[in-house]
Amino acid sequence: MQKVDLIITGGKILLMDEQNTHLENASIAIDKCDIIAIGSSFDISKKYSAKKTINAENSLIMPGFVNCHTHAAMTCFRGIADDLELMDWLNNYIFPAEAQNVNKNLAYWGTMLGCAEMIKSGTTTFKDMYIFEDETARAAKEAGMRCLVGEVLFDFSSPNIKTPEEGLAYTRMLLEKWKDDPLVNIIVEPHALYTCSPSLLTEAKKLANEFNAPVGIHLLENKEEREQLKEKFGKGAVAFLKDIGYLDDKFIAFHCVCFDDDDINLFAQHDCKIVHNPASNMKLASGIAPVPDMIKSGVTVGLGTDGCASNNNLDMIKDMSLAAKLHKVARLDPTVMDAQSVVRMATIEGAKVLGMDKFIGSLEVGKKADIIIIGLNKPHLTPLYNEYSHLVYAASGADVDTVIINGKLVMENRKLLTIDENEVMQKVREIAVGIKESLKK
Amino acid sequence: MQKVDLIITGGKILLMDEQNTHLENASIAIDKCDIIAIGSSFDISKKYSAKKTINAENSLIMPGFVNCHTHAAMTCFRGIADDLELMDWLNNYIFPAEAQNVNKNLAYWGTMLGCAEMIKSGTTTFKDMYIFEDETARAAKEAGMRCLVGEVLFDFSSPNIKTPEEGLAYTRMLLEKWKDDPLVNIIVEPHALYTCSPSLLTEAKKLANEFNAPVGIHLLENKEEREQLKEKFGKGAVAFLKDIGYLDDKFIAFHCVCFDDDDINLFAQHDCKIVHNPASNMKLASGIAPVPDMIKSGVTVGLGTDGCASNNNLDMIKDMSLAAKLHKVARLDPTVMDAQSVVRMATIEGAKVLGMDKFIGSLEVGKKADIIIIGLNKPHLTPLYNEYSHLVYAASGADVDTVIINGKLVMENRKLLTIDENEVMQKVREIAVGIKESLKK
Repeated sequence: MQKVDLIITGGKILLMDEQNTHLENASIAIDKCDIIAIGSSFDISKKYSAKKTINAENSLIMPGFVNCHTHAAMTCFRGIADDLELMDWLNNYIFPAEAQNVNKNLAYWGTMLGCAEMIKSGTTTFKDMYIFEDETARAAKEAGMRCLVGEVLFDFSSPNIKTPEEGLAYTRMLLEKWKDDPLVNIIVEPHALYTCSPSLLTEAKKLANEFNAPVGIHLLENKEEREQLKEKFGKGAVAFLKDIGYLDDKFIAFHCVCFDDDDINLFAQHDCKIVHNPASNMKLASGIAPVPDMIKSGVTVGLGTDGCASNNNLDMIKDMSLAAKLHKVARLDPTVMDAQSVVRMATIEGAKVLGMDKFIGSLEVGKKADIIIIGLNKPHLTPLYNEYSHLVYAASGADVDTVIINGKLVMENRKLLTIDENEVMQKVREIAVGIKESLKK
Repeated sequence: MQKVDLIITGGKILLMDEQNTHLENASIAIDKCDIIAIGSSFDISKKYSAKKTINAENSLIMPGFVNCHTHAAMTCFRGIADDLELMDWLNNYIFPAEAQNVNKNLAYWGTMLGCAEMIKSGTTTFKDMYIFEDETARAAKEAGMRCLVGEVLFDFSSPNIKTPEEGLAYTRMLLEKWKDDPLVNIIVEPHALYTCSPSLLTEAKKLANEFNAPVGIHLLENKEEREQLKEKFGKGAVAFLKDIGYLDDKFIAFHCVCFDDDDINLFAQHDCKIVHNPASNMKLASGIAPVPDMIKSGVTVGLGTDGCASNNNLDMIKDMSLAAKLHKVARLDPTVMDAQSVVRMATIEGAKVLGMDKFIGSLEVGKKADIIIIGLNKPHLTPLYNEYSHLVYAASGADVDTVIINGKLVMENRKLLTIDENEVMQKVREIAVGIKESLKK
């Protein structure tokens, strides 16, 4: 009898492996941060004894969600301005609110609030781009969340960074400081092609190559950006990225709403990755990314919530529901973006996008234990014919009961174990008072 | 000091009256089924004492949602078949499953499960169309839900009805039986123009007129239906409805996806009502109803979830989120369908659609007490700048804590008081075993 730290027993399991294996009355044995064994509850109980056992009867066990694009600290701006023209929204609300209020304190507490929300809706890993990302990393680590974080780089200054050179130096600091961390990973993140000079882009890519780190960027989020960049470069934005050596398997582009077939083919040829953000694209009226075509062409596509200024939540189940429905109605074809494919986007495909699929994204022996348990004994999840269908079309983030990240319990029966959520909410409410005041000026 | 049955105290209140009044630290006094007073907590506490007081600190008090179109008993088919071509879905799954399984037992328990789900996500009134609607009415009444129900009428037979004449007679029975019920109201519901002969349509309207009842019908749900009806009638479907005397203020059309400007103008001229079902329209790839144009033209538009075979849930907050986002992206205009307008669609405008706005849909003295209380002290609802924004873009059905219908508490702190939810889920699971078996044949 082998002694392990934790056994989750008696549940239905979606492994999200390449075969989309589905197990009934099954168990998972976890030791330290690793998945040691997966099998029938009977087999596991004969081979392993555990310090702690979680009964997952009437529950679904699956890998935690991978949120491939957010700005976690922007929880502080949740709902401050909606339903506005893009430029009105940016210039009269978001930019002034950010310029006057974003500091280390906001970055830390805003991220902590984001982590509370993400854990409570089943996300175990998030990819972040914002300001003061060392604070983001610190908050995520304290919350026990896995993350891939990068300081936003652009030509102009931010509350944290005065020059492009400072931004690159800060990113280098992050890459060195967090190099061997079990939870925090670093990405190099130029903001967008319309906010970064070619030299900043080139230096950013050099830095990423030096550390074998991924590069992420907002790309072709709407029609105006596409037209503006075409005029600026005299060619398509993706063709330009190819010229400057960006297109490789560690390149991640967010949004990609206005991609045409040539863009998709270039991404497929170079194994570049795409993050789809349906809630943000719909709410900001950016447009509809050709996601079914991207997937058909072999591009790996993950799912992201974007930040709380443009969503206004960090619930991956909501974005799964939108990803499944939006493309059906846009193409008048109910067969595109089936539920299982969408759950894959939110788990293993997302892990591939972030370059983390070797150790997360599916439940397999040898991978890290990033696991969520969803209670099924609820009216809106009854009856149960198909788990993927329920996840995408009926569930909500509040159905997630228990969350394990890197082998550690971070939420049990909806109680957060790593975050004092009342303290976090109080801190962010205080920050919000300042934000409201600053917008009155 | 006037003694009343119930006081809800200390909350933020959205009245959803014509002025969209918003109150802070306010209270509502309720006696029997009526709202007696609304005002500051201080004023109410001086004038009224209550048998029971609910503390709504850190909570939002608002009218319950009005689900203007569903097939509640179809919860039994939730997730049985998704992501399929419409005709494959209908002919190989839904129709055979219904033909073999729908009976009084399914209608009763399926509705009861639907009521559990609706109450738990803040719906207090629903409009239903299905088979064995006397069972639907019975279940709703036992659950304490307000409803407007109608037996589906068509030329062919159903598990309940053999001929059109029988359908009309059954509807007459419903109209007479439930005439003076405080919760159950009856609507006359021909299924659609492609399933009902002109004579059935005419007789149905006559029956409705005799009882001063509303008439509801599925209308122009997709392009195929529009083309088919145009060929059948030699004119547009709405023009045909005008000819047969259907267009008046008691006429309610569901879906209306393929409405053109002429259709909208005819509806506006005759004060006809429309129910928008965004989740169903997206999931079935029916198309995008021109809802912003309908509202601009003065047509009253409510919101519905449709049934659980095509949604697959009955959560009005999810449909609010879709209604707000879908039209923005379809029109590339982030200003259409603002949050406040969408919350109105889900409450007072829905009540107008059902002809019930004299007594529900907003919180006003003299109206019935159909009230929900939503807890705001949660990470995903923090900070709070705008309540409408949170309802539409951040909340979920699970945030609804307490529900009062017709003055009666039906859920308190998420515990259902009128329904034994474990019994209901067990009954529907048993029904689902039969449904699965029947589809194997």
